Amino acid sequence: MLKNWLYHQFDQNHWNSKGISLLNMLSIFFILAAVILQILETEQTIYEPNKNLFYWADWVLAIIFTLEFSLRLWSYGLNPQYKGIRGRLRYLKKPRNIIDIITLIPFYATLGSSSWLWLRSLRALRVFSLIRHRVLMSAFRLLYKAVSSRKTELLVTLILALTMLFTSATFLYLIERNVQPETFGSIPRALWWSIATLTTVGYGDVTPITALGKFVAGITALIGLALVAMPTGILAAAFSNEFQKRREEKERVKENCLTDVY
Amino acid sequence: MLKNWLYHQFDQNHWNSKGISLLNMLSIFFILAAVILQILETEQTIYEPNKNLFYWADWVLAIIFTLEFSLRLWSYGLNPQYKGIRGRLRYLKKPRNIIDIITLIPFYATLGSSSWLWLRSLRALRVFSLIRHRVLMSAFRLLYKAVSSRKTELLVTLILALTMLFTSATFLYLIERNVQPETFGSIPRALWWSIATLTTVGYGDVTPITALGKFVAGITALIGLALVAMPTGILAAAFSNEFQKRREEKERVKENCLTDVY
Amino acid sequence: MLKNWLYHQFDQNHWNSKGISLLNMLSIFFILAAVILQILETEQTIYEPNKNLFYWADWVLAIIFTLEFSLRLWSYGLNPQYKGIRGRLRYLKKPRNIIDIITLIPFYATLGSSSWLWLRSLRALRVFSLIRHRVLMSAFRLLYKAVSSRKTELLVTLILALTMLFTSATFLYLIERNVQPETFGSIPRALWWSIATLTTVGYGDVTPITALGKFVAGITALIGLALVAMPTGILAAAFSNEFQKRREEKERVKENCLTDVY
Amino acid sequence: MLKNWLYHQFDQNHWNSKGISLLNMLSIFFILAAVILQILETEQTIYEPNKNLFYWADWVLAIIFTLEFSLRLWSYGLNPQYKGIRGRLRYLKKPRNIIDIITLIPFYATLGSSSWLWLRSLRALRVFSLIRHRVLMSAFRLLYKAVSSRKTELLVTLILALTMLFTSATFLYLIERNVQPETFGSIPRALWWSIATLTTVGYGDVTPITALGKFVAGITALIGLALVAMPTGILAAAFSNEFQKRREEKERVKENCLTDVY
Repeated sequence: MLKNWLYHQFDQNHWNSKGISLLNMLSIFFILAAVILQILETEQTIYEPNKNLFYWADWVLAIIFTLEFSLRLWSYGLNPQYKGIRGRLRYLKKPRNIIDIITLIPFYATLGSSSWLWLRSLRALRVFSLIRHRVLMSAFRLLYKAVSSRKTELLVTLILALTMLFTSATFLYLIERNVQPETFGSIPRALWWSIATLTTVGYGDVTPITALGKFVAGITALIGLALVAMPTGILAAAFSNEFQKRREEKERVKENCLTDVY
Repeated sequence: MLKNWLYHQFDQNHWNSKGISLLNMLSIFFILAAVILQILETEQTIYEPNKNLFYWADWVLAIIFTLEFSLRLWSYGLNPQYKGIRGRLRYLKKPRNIIDIITLIPFYATLGSSSWLWLRSLRALRVFSLIRHRVLMSAFRLLYKAVSSRKTELLVTLILALTMLFTSATFLYLIERNVQPETFGSIPRALWWSIATLTTVGYGDVTPITALGKFVAGITALIGLALVAMPTGILAAAFSNEFQKRREEKERVKENCLTDVY
Repeated sequence: MLKNWLYHQFDQNHWNSKGISLLNMLSIFFILAAVILQILETEQTIYEPNKNLFYWADWVLAIIFTLEFSLRLWSYGLNPQYKGIRGRLRYLKKPRNIIDIITLIPFYATLGSSSWLWLRSLRALRVFSLIRHRVLMSAFRLLYKAVSSRKTELLVTLILALTMLFTSATFLYLIERNVQPETFGSIPRALWWSIATLTTVGYGDVTPITALGKFVAGITALIGLALVAMPTGILAAAFSNEFQKRREEKERVKENCLTDVY
Repeated sequence: MLKNWLYHQFDQNHWNSKGISLLNMLSIFFILAAVILQILETEQTIYEPNKNLFYWADWVLAIIFTLEFSLRLWSYGLNPQYKGIRGRLRYLKKPRNIIDIITLIPFYATLGSSSWLWLRSLRALRVFSLIRHRVLMSAFRLLYKAVSSRKTELLVTLILALTMLFTSATFLYLIERNVQPETFGSIPRALWWSIATLTTVGYGDVTPITALGKFVAGITALIGLALVAMPTGILAAAFSNEFQKRREEKERVKENCLTDVY
């Protein structure tokens, strides 16, 4: 009974109702909680006064994740594919379970200690298990298909962007290197300004001060707009095509249904 | 006569001519005036020398809004749906009237005093009654439909954006925490830089100073472009589909009309 | 002979070859030269050492524009529409000639003096006569049609943007007014930060310093992305529709031609 | 044998397999290496301690590029078009070989010396030989076709942008020239602020400080959004059309194939 209930709760593909099952909802909640805790832990003004809270939260989350993993492993025996010990081993080889194991190890290894940060940050990998949800996967695949269908065009845009990046950096290096040697004294240094301008981020920590430098910088900023517009335009067209394809497919399915009726 | 005139003035759905009726125009004007007054009131250099003006404007607006509300309530008796006291009560239950009542209460409660700011800012809710206009509602619905038709794709983009946000913040925290402990000393602090960079806002109050930090920041800025391009592309495709649907519907209606003629 | 040559040179509609006629080319060149001179004149480090040059350039341009205007007026007598003195007066009433006269008056009135700046800046209106060119007009009309076909949707986006602008300014005013009274001490002051953030300009002269303020600012920046994406998406879809319409029209014309042949 | 292998390696058009041949891969790698070396050379903190490394890398790259060029010239004799000395001379006249020769000369002329920077930077031209690759060329042509098919619309956008640029600069010059003569004392100076705002770069090194100046700047920033949205929308529509054309062409080809079968 319990095993059956657990299995239907864990396995999203066998979950009939729309939306996410209660247990998966809880799982997502605890994963997000673990990530947020880990982020807050790095802030000393939050961590120091609540050391105990973080210590216990770590333990509680470790127990919850272990429990969830064990129960899932147990209940998946109901799936004929993963029956018995050999089936369980097959189940463990699925990417999401490898991620789960990888993220459980640092949980135990660093339990209650805030050192070993690199190992601990592996826990954050758990976030990717959120993407397993069916509807998200479908949207994710659509985005991926749209992007990859235009990957050569996007690559050409990137090449143009990099060419612009180095050209404008070289120009400003030649113009401003004597006036501002600290920030424009070499092409790698000028690149910092160049990337901030072409992406329209514009930190403003480094700006040209000569008239000629400002003139070239102004043209660079205008070209930066084109660099933003190109990939956006390509992606918009790719998404448009992809959405239209889906729509046409649906209509074809509908038409076929109508034809079957007559 | 007056009741009839008022009713046709107030009820946009029974207003035959294109555009907005005179009374609704006045209503929009006074709502905007009330919002602008409330904004200016917070600026001491404007408020102090004109205290009396603000005091009287408050009173005048309170009387106007009360009058408008009472007259509307009275004239809506002409609508068979809202006839009699029971009909009026039914009318009062409509969302727009609930907003009107909620925004009238703080008007009286805080009349002539500039304290109770939280209560007073509820008045600004009146702005939303501007959206009731038919043409705006139609455009608003179209935008809403386009956005909600692609909500899973937009959600995936948001998840990607948040992942990038935390990843870049973590990287810069690890790289710059010893050099700039004040601004990169924890992941939550690094997030402030991270969000300013990925959204291409680029305040420049916090920037990496190490070479490695600048390198990672440059890549983050380039990825930021992609984060801007993705939702724009999705929305462009969604709007394009939605506009095409409307066009096809219109053409279908036209074709049907032509068929009817023959 | 000369009159005929001049007429065909001036009248772009009767200019058979592709591109711009020699005289119109010269006209565009001198208009741009006048605008650039006027801009450079305001810079004292350029104006002071070249005072004589600016003085003579002013005279030369005044003579050229007067000559161009007189010759055009004279040669247009060849157009039966504008024959005789009455025809010439009719010609003078065309918008472009009214602009020409308006821009010639300040030329004479301020000749050789750098005061009366407001009157002098009227000269820059001449730039708009550049748009008269046929191909540009056609492209300009297409852009105008695309934008105006979606004006309600763009208006709704603007309303959403203004709502966000005031909401975020109000929030930051409430959060930061005690910490930074100079820059967040009133809603109008907070609006300066708000508009720089939502448009992703991000000057960085004003930024929140409290944790809560930074949190709200981060969310504002993310919403700013949506505000950039919405109008871009709407315009992309509108341009796409408009381009498609043109294409379909061309194809219909082609099909009709083919039908006529059979 | 070797000549034949070399020829098929060098000539991408006669390279049957998908992807890039081994020798071209190596060529791309060394070109990128040469560009990166040249960028790093300008940074004294990197150049000074590794002077010998840069010296030898220069020599090695010069030998590699000479070898690659000679071997290609020799092996192209297999192409009947370029047979014999006259054929070779004809081959040398192709744009890519002229670039190669131009980029080889500064290599020898400045070998081992870091002066003559202008001559040396000609080496970077080699990067453009990367674009020769077939798939990239096809994507590049598509982008070019899309952009050039809408060049008048983009030109009109640019004219609108420049008009806005000068108008906003003039306004801020008139408003702020007395308060901030250093940064807004002339229209050319105000243009620096204007371009940073309209492109949404927003360095923040120059910002208006008067209330009126901030008001005009805010409106400028909002119009800046439109200036970003317009070209993006045009490009998105142009790419969409271009992609659709390709798709329709492919479908037509498919249909023709099917028709041939029946």
